[in-house]
Amino acid sequence: MILSFTDFGWRGPYLGEMRAAALRLAPDVAYIDLMADAPAFRPDLAAYLLAALVQRLEPGEVLLAVVDPGVGTERASLAIKADGRWLVGPDNGLFELALRRSRHLRTFAIDWRPRQLSASFHGRDLFAPTAARLATGDESGLVPTTPTRHADWPDDLDCVVHVDGYGNLVTGRRAATLPRAAAFSLDGRLVRHARTFAEAEPGALLCYANSAGLLEIARNGGSAASLLDLEAGASLRLQPAVAGST
Amino acid sequence: MILSFTDFGWRGPYLGEMRAAALRLAPDVAYIDLMADAPAFRPDLAAYLLAALVQRLEPGEVLLAVVDPGVGTERASLAIKADGRWLVGPDNGLFELALRRSRHLRTFAIDWRPRQLSASFHGRDLFAPTAARLATGDESGLVPTTPTRHADWPDDLDCVVHVDGYGNLVTGRRAATLPRAAAFSLDGRLVRHARTFAEAEPGALLCYANSAGLLEIARNGGSAASLLDLEAGASLRLQPAVAGST
Amino acid sequence: MILSFTDFGWRGPYLGEMRAAALRLAPDVAYIDLMADAPAFRPDLAAYLLAALVQRLEPGEVLLAVVDPGVGTERASLAIKADGRWLVGPDNGLFELALRRSRHLRTFAIDWRPRQLSASFHGRDLFAPTAARLATGDESGLVPTTPTRHADWPDDLDCVVHVDGYGNLVTGRRAATLPRAAAFSLDGRLVRHARTFAEAEPGALLCYANSAGLLEIARNGGSAASLLDLEAGASLRLQPAVAGST
Repeated sequence: MILSFTDFGWRGPYLGEMRAAALRLAPDVAYIDLMADAPAFRPDLAAYLLAALVQRLEPGEVLLAVVDPGVGTERASLAIKADGRWLVGPDNGLFELALRRSRHLRTFAIDWRPRQLSASFHGRDLFAPTAARLATGDESGLVPTTPTRHADWPDDLDCVVHVDGYGNLVTGRRAATLPRAAAFSLDGRLVRHARTFAEAEPGALLCYANSAGLLEIARNGGSAASLLDLEAGASLRLQPAVAGST
Repeated sequence: MILSFTDFGWRGPYLGEMRAAALRLAPDVAYIDLMADAPAFRPDLAAYLLAALVQRLEPGEVLLAVVDPGVGTERASLAIKADGRWLVGPDNGLFELALRRSRHLRTFAIDWRPRQLSASFHGRDLFAPTAARLATGDESGLVPTTPTRHADWPDDLDCVVHVDGYGNLVTGRRAATLPRAAAFSLDGRLVRHARTFAEAEPGALLCYANSAGLLEIARNGGSAASLLDLEAGASLRLQPAVAGST
Repeated sequence: MILSFTDFGWRGPYLGEMRAAALRLAPDVAYIDLMADAPAFRPDLAAYLLAALVQRLEPGEVLLAVVDPGVGTERASLAIKADGRWLVGPDNGLFELALRRSRHLRTFAIDWRPRQLSASFHGRDLFAPTAARLATGDESGLVPTTPTRHADWPDDLDCVVHVDGYGNLVTGRRAATLPRAAAFSLDGRLVRHARTFAEAEPGALLCYANSAGLLEIARNGGSAASLLDLEAGASLRLQPAVAGST
C-alpha cells in the first residue's frame, strides 16, 4: 500500500499524474491519497502531522511524502525504513519527527534517476516510482545516507499544523503530552477538555486527542478557525485553567 | 465494491484513512469515494440524497455512509441489507428513506468492536472495517436490530439537499413525483421544465430530473445557487405556473 | 489504465459514479482521476491541456474526457485511437489539438447505447462504459467516423487554460515554441525565464516549461493569478524583453 501526503491540493493533474506513475510500475498495489493539503511549502509544520499519521501505518506500507519547496535545487532525496514502514520524499525536514520517534531506522538516498526528470515535479518523476518499487519489495537504487537533521525543532509544536473541513484546528502537539486538566485557557477563552463534541455547550470551544493522537481544538457546532481567526502556522498554546476562570 | 458517502469534505486525511482501513481488510475490493460533500451534520437532509444514490447500486455493493454528528455518543450503528445492497453507518436517520423504499430488508446492529475505537472517527475504526468484511461476504459481528425510525419525515423533501460544482440545486424530491407542467414558479420566477440545458434561454432557470432521479434546478450558463442565494437546507418548492405568468 | 479528465470539480457524486460505471465493467483496470478542474464548459481551452497530458500517456491507456456543455443535444461522441492511446468523449473540439499532434489516427463514433441514457450525464452512462471496454481490449460498438474539426484554432494558445492550487498560470502554449530569451515582458512586468523557482527573487514573476511541457507563469512565494488578476480564459502573451527593460 502506498499512501500519498502532499501539499498539492486537489487542483490540476498533479495527484493523478503521481498516482499513474506509481501504478504503471506497481499495478497491483493499493494507492491512497492520504492527504493533499499538508501545510503548503512548510515541511517544518508538515513534519508534525506526518509523524502522527506514520504511527498508524502497517509494516510494509509506503508513505510518499511531497512537501517540497526546494524541488529542482540541490536538496537530497530520502527513502527511510522506519519500524518497518517506508518513507519516501525530499530531505528537507519533512521526516524529522518521524525519524526521532522511530526505533529501527535505515536511511537511504535515492540514487536511481528516471530517463526524464522534470525540474518541478520530482513527486511524479522520482519519488512515486521509488515508492512503487519499494511497495513491491524492490530496494534497488538506494544508497545509505545520513539525513539532514533539525535538532532545534521541538518534540511537540504549539502551532496550528492543519485546519480541517469543519474548521477544527489540529496542532503539532501529541495530546498525550498535555498536562491533565479539565479545562484550558487560550487567549483568555476557556477551552474544555472533552472526549466528544456532545460534552461541550453549543458554540463552546473544546480540545481533545484527535483520531491521529494530536491535540485538536474545535468549536461545538461551528468553526474554531473562524472564531479564533487562526490558520496553519499560527502559534497556539493552551494553559491549564485555574478553577473559576473563564 | 464499497462506495463512501460522507460529509468529511476533501480536507485532511479522513477519506484516505477510511479507505486504508477498508483496503487493509479487503485489498481486492474496489473502493470508490462516491460523495464527500453530503450535507454536513445533517443526516435528515443527506437521507434523501443517499436514498436516490442507493437506487443505482448493484446487488452486493456496499454503501459506507458517514454523516455522523453524534459520533462518540450512544447512537447505535447499523448494517442494512436492502434489496441486495449493504448500507453501513450510524443509526441517526441517514437510512430512513432508503429503508422506506426497499422491499427486502434485513437490519443489524454492528456488534463487532475494533481493538482501538477513537471517540471521533467511527468511519475509520468501525464502519470501514465492517463494510470491508461485508464486501468480501463476511457477515460476522452483526446482530438483528430494529433501526430508529422517523415516521414524521416526508417521502419527498422540498429542500435543497446539495449544491453541485456548477451551482445547480439538488432537491430532496424525486422528479417523478412532480406534477406535469411545462413551467413552474419559484418565488415569482419562472422555471422552465426542460430535458437539457440547451432548451432554456441563456441565464434562464430550468428544472429537470437529474442523473439520480431527483428534481434539480439550474440556470443555463450560470449558478442557480448564486442567483437564488440558496444553500443546502433551504426550503425550495416549485408551484405549477399558470399560462402567461412570468 | 483509464484516466479521467473532466470539468466536474470534486463536488457531488459525479466523479464517483463515473468511476463506478467503469469499474463494474472492468474491475481489474486502474482508474485514475487525472484532472477534475479542466476549464468548465470550455472544450476550446481544455483541448490544449488535454493534448499536453495525452503526450504523457502510455500505449493502451484510455483518456476518458468529459467537458461536455452540449450533453443531451445532437453533438456526436468519439473514440479515437491516437498513437496507441484511446481518447473517449464528446465531439466538440476537446480532441482537436490531440488529433493534430498524433501521427497514427483511427477515429470512431460510439454506436453502442446503454439501456438507460440520462440526458445530462453521458460521462457516466456512455463514455465511462466505452472507456472500460476499450481498456480491456474490447473495441465493439464503434463505427468509423470523421470528427468535426476546428481548423481556425491556433496550434498554441496564448491564454490561461488552468490556474493551479498555487496560483500558477498554465497557458495553452507549448513551452518549446517560445522564442529564446532570458526574460519576457507581460503587461509591462518583467517575467524571468527560469528553470526552478529558486532562480527568481522572492515575489518576482517567472516562466518555465511546466511538467506537462506547457508554458507556465508563476510568482516565487506567491500567487501569479492573484497578482495579475487572471483566470482561465484570459489572454496571456509574453513578449521577449529588451535588455534594460523592466
